[in-house]
Amino acid sequence: DSTLKVFTCNANPDLAREIVEHIGIPLGDAEVLRFSDGEIRVKLNESVRGADVFVIQSTSSPVNEHLMELLIMVDALKRASAKSINVVIPYYGYARQDRKARARDPITAKLVANLIETAGAHRMISMDLHATQIQGFFDIPVDHLLGVPILADFFAKKNLKDIVVVSPDHGGVTRARKMAERLGAPIAIIDKRRPEPNVAEIMNIVGNVDGKVAILIDDIIDTAGTIALAANALKEAGAKEVYASCTHPVLSGPAIERIQNSQIKELVVTNTIPLSTEKKNDKIKTLSVAPLIGEAIVRVHEELSVSKLFD
Amino acid sequence: DSTLKVFTCNANPDLAREIVEHIGIPLGDAEVLRFSDGEIRVKLNESVRGADVFVIQSTSSPVNEHLMELLIMVDALKRASAKSINVVIPYYGYARQDRKARARDPITAKLVANLIETAGAHRMISMDLHATQIQGFFDIPVDHLLGVPILADFFAKKNLKDIVVVSPDHGGVTRARKMAERLGAPIAIIDKRRPEPNVAEIMNIVGNVDGKVAILIDDIIDTAGTIALAANALKEAGAKEVYASCTHPVLSGPAIERIQNSQIKELVVTNTIPLSTEKKNDKIKTLSVAPLIGEAIVRVHEELSVSKLFD
Ligand SMILES: Nc1ncnc2c1ncn2[C@@H]1O[C@H](COP(=O)(O)O)[C@@H](O)[C@H]1O
Ligand SMILES: Nc1ncnc2c1ncn2[C@@H]1O[C@H](COP(=O)(O)O)[C@@H](O)[C@H]1O
Repeated sequence: DSTLKVFTCNANPDLAREIVEHIGIPLGDAEVLRFSDGEIRVKLNESVRGADVFVIQSTSSPVNEHLMELLIMVDALKRASAKSINVVIPYYGYARQDRKARARDPITAKLVANLIETAGAHRMISMDLHATQIQGFFDIPVDHLLGVPILADFFAKKNLKDIVVVSPDHGGVTRARKMAERLGAPIAIIDKRRPEPNVAEIMNIVGNVDGKVAILIDDIIDTAGTIALAANALKEAGAKEVYASCTHPVLSGPAIERIQNSQIKELVVTNTIPLSTEKKNDKIKTLSVAPLIGEAIVRVHEELSVSKLFD
Repeated sequence: DSTLKVFTCNANPDLAREIVEHIGIPLGDAEVLRFSDGEIRVKLNESVRGADVFVIQSTSSPVNEHLMELLIMVDALKRASAKSINVVIPYYGYARQDRKARARDPITAKLVANLIETAGAHRMISMDLHATQIQGFFDIPVDHLLGVPILADFFAKKNLKDIVVVSPDHGGVTRARKMAERLGAPIAIIDKRRPEPNVAEIMNIVGNVDGKVAILIDDIIDTAGTIALAANALKEAGAKEVYASCTHPVLSGPAIERIQNSQIKELVVTNTIPLSTEKKNDKIKTLSVAPLIGEAIVRVHEELSVSKLFD
């Protein structure tokens, strides 16, 4: 059996510490620093020879810094003879650039997959990929974890009556249905439509929300424009209370202000992306993915020990 | 004959404009922007189908932003059916991480070479790679241009008497000799030595500088510690005046202050890295590499048209 080691770069140090605590091992001794000119300097302070290594690093903002930290860490681990290099990317950045939406668009989500493999990763663990197709961008195994059970558990414990789970768009219906099943609730869907170019979108609600407690669920909340408008539309349609939830709280630009000023009673997120102090907020509740990821790491490590793939 | 198109990302827009002016073509129409969360958004506003495309982008500070801009641009060009993608990286960042100087170091200069090839580049043009071994990190053709002729020409026109060209370390002797040949001058070498750990370095000068005009030459000046100490040592050894020169003015951290307070009369650099307004300075003279790079691009484009490699 080869040793299990877990390292972190700079995106999720707290989550990494929680994960190793959950597993019951110390955090690997490494530093990811900067030279005077801003170049990344990775220092591995312990041997990784023959070890199954896991690196925790979301490619959250600043995405290019975090991605390069991860790639250079993987390069260092590879050259230091790690037996297997497993990258744990709780939030996979650039996931929305997953297709040519316009002529001559790059497909950056695929580029990033290629970069991670080129650096030398043998496996990726991620959560709620914006498009599940991104698994197919990799030629290495991808373990895809879901935030829905964690978010649903939280709402289940609240003992809310007369819930409806709402998807803010057509793309998120499967996710909303999964949460609805766990809560024994019906679903509704917000059907955004722009009647003419340069005219504001109309939020049409498919399903009954009148007198109900609405729980919006999405994978990513970024500038929070959609979710804030959706919450307001739900209230107007008679919803008693509106909760919102997502796995990945990107929360860029005007997001915090929009959430504050919206009809959202509480926003429930996970710690795949840590909230900076300025973003921390009475309305936002953070749940930890550390147990989920910790268990995934232990399971993968067992698989690696059983399989002969890396022997 | 396929069309020649030149694009730029955000590291060297002025240099790129100078280059296309030199060649006599318009700059390719593209934008490299940011989404609200900091992710890079590349917009190619013209067709590149069947074209020989050159992208100008130094991986200067912020190096990770600039590198990712380049990689995403190359991805977009590849998917838009460019015939050949030629990356022009006047300053190749991460070049000093070119070997395992310590156990478990990454070799980031090699990682970056792999990333560039993975993105889809067919050829690289660069200047004064910190280690010429970096050419061997690539499996695609590398054109390696030198700053020495440009710097030497500038000093030749000054009609200085009694010159000695000085290499600030043993690694730079070949470069100093090339400049000395062009100026018909002898060379000297600074021999840094640390007598004991944690004792300041001693700057020992090999060669005669007494009563002479010393011209220091290096590839990169970063924090300017070495070059400032070297200038002072040359003055103490009797040099009449000390000039300094380099291809790549990284000039990070205390560099500008150190140069100001040093015995350096004038620092001559090129525009492989543009100087920010705060760095612009009476003591610093910038020479353009646009004609050199422009000619290299025209030559490569002719080669590509003659060869059948991309047909
Ligand atoms: N970081 C980003 N922020 C905002 N929009 C993005 C980002 N990355 C890609 N997009 C755009 O989002 C759209 C895809 O989002 P979606 O329809 O939710 O899959 C495309 O039009 C992309 O150009
Ligand atoms: N961006 C950087 N700034 C300062 N030092 C660096 C940088 N990148 C690498 N190094 C270190 O510089 C040394 C190599 O420089 P050199 O001996 O000039 O080739 C190694 O010890 C590297 O760890």
